[in-house]
Amino acid sequence: MVQVAIVGASGYAGADLVRLLHRHPAVELVCITDLTNAGKPFSDVYPAFRGRVDRILENIPPAEVAKRASLVLAAVPHVAAMGMVPELLAGGARVIDLSADYRLQDAAEYAAWYGHSHTSPELLAEAVYGLPELNREAIRGARLIANPGCYPTGAALPLLPLLRAGAIDPDSLIVDSKSGTSGAGRTPSPGTVFCEVNEGFKAYGVASHRHTPEIEQTLSTVLARSVRISFTPHLLPLNRGILTTTYASMTPARTTEDLLGLLQRAYAAEPWVRVLPAGQLPNVAHVRGSNYCDIGLVADARTGRVVVVSAIDNLVKGAAGQAVQNMNLMLDLSETTGLDVTPLTP
Amino acid sequence: MVQVAIVGASGYAGADLVRLLHRHPAVELVCITDLTNAGKPFSDVYPAFRGRVDRILENIPPAEVAKRASLVLAAVPHVAAMGMVPELLAGGARVIDLSADYRLQDAAEYAAWYGHSHTSPELLAEAVYGLPELNREAIRGARLIANPGCYPTGAALPLLPLLRAGAIDPDSLIVDSKSGTSGAGRTPSPGTVFCEVNEGFKAYGVASHRHTPEIEQTLSTVLARSVRISFTPHLLPLNRGILTTTYASMTPARTTEDLLGLLQRAYAAEPWVRVLPAGQLPNVAHVRGSNYCDIGLVADARTGRVVVVSAIDNLVKGAAGQAVQNMNLMLDLSETTGLDVTPLTP
Amino acid sequence: MVQVAIVGASGYAGADLVRLLHRHPAVELVCITDLTNAGKPFSDVYPAFRGRVDRILENIPPAEVAKRASLVLAAVPHVAAMGMVPELLAGGARVIDLSADYRLQDAAEYAAWYGHSHTSPELLAEAVYGLPELNREAIRGARLIANPGCYPTGAALPLLPLLRAGAIDPDSLIVDSKSGTSGAGRTPSPGTVFCEVNEGFKAYGVASHRHTPEIEQTLSTVLARSVRISFTPHLLPLNRGILTTTYASMTPARTTEDLLGLLQRAYAAEPWVRVLPAGQLPNVAHVRGSNYCDIGLVADARTGRVVVVSAIDNLVKGAAGQAVQNMNLMLDLSETTGLDVTPLTP
Amino acid sequence: MVQVAIVGASGYAGADLVRLLHRHPAVELVCITDLTNAGKPFSDVYPAFRGRVDRILENIPPAEVAKRASLVLAAVPHVAAMGMVPELLAGGARVIDLSADYRLQDAAEYAAWYGHSHTSPELLAEAVYGLPELNREAIRGARLIANPGCYPTGAALPLLPLLRAGAIDPDSLIVDSKSGTSGAGRTPSPGTVFCEVNEGFKAYGVASHRHTPEIEQTLSTVLARSVRISFTPHLLPLNRGILTTTYASMTPARTTEDLLGLLQRAYAAEPWVRVLPAGQLPNVAHVRGSNYCDIGLVADARTGRVVVVSAIDNLVKGAAGQAVQNMNLMLDLSETTGLDVTPLTP
Repeated sequence: MVQVAIVGASGYAGADLVRLLHRHPAVELVCITDLTNAGKPFSDVYPAFRGRVDRILENIPPAEVAKRASLVLAAVPHVAAMGMVPELLAGGARVIDLSADYRLQDAAEYAAWYGHSHTSPELLAEAVYGLPELNREAIRGARLIANPGCYPTGAALPLLPLLRAGAIDPDSLIVDSKSGTSGAGRTPSPGTVFCEVNEGFKAYGVASHRHTPEIEQTLSTVLARSVRISFTPHLLPLNRGILTTTYASMTPARTTEDLLGLLQRAYAAEPWVRVLPAGQLPNVAHVRGSNYCDIGLVADARTGRVVVVSAIDNLVKGAAGQAVQNMNLMLDLSETTGLDVTPLTP
Repeated sequence: MVQVAIVGASGYAGADLVRLLHRHPAVELVCITDLTNAGKPFSDVYPAFRGRVDRILENIPPAEVAKRASLVLAAVPHVAAMGMVPELLAGGARVIDLSADYRLQDAAEYAAWYGHSHTSPELLAEAVYGLPELNREAIRGARLIANPGCYPTGAALPLLPLLRAGAIDPDSLIVDSKSGTSGAGRTPSPGTVFCEVNEGFKAYGVASHRHTPEIEQTLSTVLARSVRISFTPHLLPLNRGILTTTYASMTPARTTEDLLGLLQRAYAAEPWVRVLPAGQLPNVAHVRGSNYCDIGLVADARTGRVVVVSAIDNLVKGAAGQAVQNMNLMLDLSETTGLDVTPLTP
Repeated sequence: MVQVAIVGASGYAGADLVRLLHRHPAVELVCITDLTNAGKPFSDVYPAFRGRVDRILENIPPAEVAKRASLVLAAVPHVAAMGMVPELLAGGARVIDLSADYRLQDAAEYAAWYGHSHTSPELLAEAVYGLPELNREAIRGARLIANPGCYPTGAALPLLPLLRAGAIDPDSLIVDSKSGTSGAGRTPSPGTVFCEVNEGFKAYGVASHRHTPEIEQTLSTVLARSVRISFTPHLLPLNRGILTTTYASMTPARTTEDLLGLLQRAYAAEPWVRVLPAGQLPNVAHVRGSNYCDIGLVADARTGRVVVVSAIDNLVKGAAGQAVQNMNLMLDLSETTGLDVTPLTP
Repeated sequence: MVQVAIVGASGYAGADLVRLLHRHPAVELVCITDLTNAGKPFSDVYPAFRGRVDRILENIPPAEVAKRASLVLAAVPHVAAMGMVPELLAGGARVIDLSADYRLQDAAEYAAWYGHSHTSPELLAEAVYGLPELNREAIRGARLIANPGCYPTGAALPLLPLLRAGAIDPDSLIVDSKSGTSGAGRTPSPGTVFCEVNEGFKAYGVASHRHTPEIEQTLSTVLARSVRISFTPHLLPLNRGILTTTYASMTPARTTEDLLGLLQRAYAAEPWVRVLPAGQLPNVAHVRGSNYCDIGLVADARTGRVVVVSAIDNLVKGAAGQAVQNMNLMLDLSETTGLDVTPLTP
């Protein structure tokens, strides 16, 4: 059993890490930490876990965490993450960071989009972007994983095979995403009060959301050329799920079946990507609580564009589940270990 | 007082017509009809109206309706509408048809998208497309109004001034819409069962939705050239509202303020269009129950595209409210008569 | 036109006062105040009101408010209310207080349930409990109205006629209420974050909710004997509405029709109480946005108990609407003035 | 591996059986049947199961099912169930029936409440009521299990220990339940259309719901005297969960801690009942997707009543999960086998 710690276990992503790891057959959860709830049993903060995870939340320094655990999953906000990751690594732990702090390879771009200068830029070159379907081999041996953002995961997975095959024009990409409210975190704020979200729907962060450069970096790296996209997130009045609708010009026009075939071949061996048959499209309800990314598409001969739709659970494949998938790779386990959960429906 | 009838009063659009007209100061509701609920008080079908509209729903032939009412609002499904509109007109009534039957000017296009040949194509030339902000003068004198579809209303209003000003490229338009479930009607179906919609979100009718040619017709008419768009509707787990996010290439790039200024000038005198200031974006919650169309936008210098967002209540500005606005015009009333309702929030 | 002010206009009850009063034909809204949003247009805080109520929120002392307005509606939290009501009255204004501060006639009971000693106990005898169906005549001449709580309104209205007629045993009353989340206010808190409420349902304040003594006081006053009830509130994952299910032993057993007849006779002349026919029961959706209290019941011969169900919109008949109804009485207007809104459905 | 069949796998309870059984380590799912979807892969009906359960739904006669499976879980409506259970038993299968057909021991009472005469009354004496916490030993050896109703499970579990201890008056029981909409099934009907349920809340089946005699039978059996209760179900606008609030007179008054102690001792060894500490109360969100029944209570010295609150997932402990728990008992497995799922939150 590998000794594992979760830093920042009281947020929604942290709690989903606890959900997935407390019964994981190959790891032992030795430490869960939280700043504000330290001293309380985890099940006081999340009563759903009563009798399952009654362990006390602790508030201990990174060096101490690294002493107890050989692998640490950090689910704290950006900036806070880079305040502890170097110390965790120095203490000998491998780290999966769920924040944005090590995702962008260029410290200047990080500073531009996040409004903070990076305090450990020397780690950016070492950090591996933890999208297993893209970087599987590098992840296995990594010391530091930058776990992808929720929107970038839902955006990149359906596009990568299409771009690699030259099937779509990289300059035409328009990514329209809609996320459940758990993506906004558990800390109360005026924008996430129930009555402000329920029966409402809006766009936010238009032309300015911080996941834009992350998506662009992934696509640019794969194509070895600079890609710029339009990306618009929206807030859905539901708990879990991101649906991403992407528009791209086909080069040249093909049939729906052709393009689906391309995706099916690319993802045939992937345990957590499901390419739907022609005529079917994803629904966030069909991946709820699971690590799946469902993908469907329609080629539109009228306009010469393809409309690609993906669905993930933002807390699972978009955060905690993908982190566990990365952990499994780092520990030479099957990628499905501890993740074999059927989506909860209805 | 003008004698007015509502045909098909038991659907959601019909019921919203009743809501807006039973207290309208210039009309008398002389007849409300329904096929399946005929004989019942309206308030048995919609208990919210108890003590307000207890009138009996009737099932009477169009000729009889036309005898009683000088203006008829028809809220029945397409095909059913063209089965009664000629008779209503022949009986001397003016008609506002909320169905799609008289919206497309080309009977062949109607047949292609709706799968039925048109049974009164001779009326297509006469029918006026009832978007007051576009066709105000023609509406005043019209005998037959084709009340616009919900998606086409939310899509066209923000785009018209931008296209007219040559500010955006008509070949670049991508219209991503999200609608509340009342748009799917009140008839039970597997796709609208509560548990199938709640906590779910999906695209549907991708590259094939019947509102596509309606939007294209409006934009093409205004530009006097053929316009083709990508249009994708999605189903939101909420009752009322459509948010439409449209992407267009700017020709050339301008600032957010410039483009908003363009919209503000175009709609300065419109009672039911609200152009939001820079930095603010629409939310379907802010128009709930009202006839407003809220519009905001962000010009993105990085990509050269503008992202335009509109919000309407699909049952009001997208159906019943717009019909009443058209009726007001036909009766030489102020366009706000009977519509002066503050959005219900929260 | 009577000059009217709203103190605390940024909370949900305050905003519903603005909704109902800005178009009220007999009053002029001369002042709306708020502590935290002072200086902003009301429509910045509630974008639904853009173009309708763009008036600036002010932060001015009670004496100044009383100079501008002859009638003040105060929608601030308890304790804050008693900090300003005496000054408002001293300044010559009549006051409708939506807080709990003047509802309980006994200052000791107030202190016991609210945990604060009362700072203006001398006003408790003067304050009129503003349930028009109970205290109509006293309300007309009152200087200070204690606007009833939301739960107490939904609980008392169905019970009063049954208790007065001796039809039910006052010692058997069990009041099980379920409220939409707007009742918890607009201030962010851990318990009202969207994901914590959505898809959840719980009881709270069991055997300890502050509305308990208020309900008991109303029932006790009417019966001229002490009444104790069991009262349990629950939190519903929806915006507006309270459904109250009350159980009482019949003395003696009667039919559903008999008991409904009793209620129908008691409320025949009431504009805002709808007694449903046998076989129909209230739904919070059927009163949404309106001032109605819908009441239904079933007499159960098996158990000798009657199950009484009422539905109100907690922000309207449970707060702002009832306040306007009281204001109408105080100003010798029809009780329906400014309140004639059809419930918004769906 | 035991060969198991699910009859009626396309309803919500049937689908939750598939969710729990397709990965159950001790059984092999050899057959899933459905009338209307026969011939389709299960994952076409429930796309969440794509790649997990693609098995074809069959429409085969009970005798054939009994040939393939030694244990059959039947999730078909009442009446349909008693049309096949005798044949399944005759074919040698053990049967867990999730319908109401074998729950009431008295065929006359069944006929009175369900409106059909029973067609296999001879089996009523043999059928074991499958509430493991009550009938564990009888379940182990049973040939036919009547799986309890959802409401009766949530109502009985918290009351049984209190009644057995004589702590509450059986004649005072008032059971106020609130259920998520999945309890109404997947078949479209006017009452379960999304917009009719969302933002609504109502009581239904007042004083006439068919689960009333089932609850009374369980309590009466335990007390060896006739018990009559008031039972009112309500419809919650959420997918999964039943919260039951029960009121009972204490005999005599005790403290919250005393009564909780009683429950804690009674359920100390139960894997699926969680008695919460004083000060905490259940929420349906905290049991979502799991087999837990959470119980809390408050003793109210003011009224001499105790308020007991329980939460279950109506599809799990209220249906499929309890059926699997019963199956585990019948197969001499640990009761938690295949059920060890953490509630999904948020």
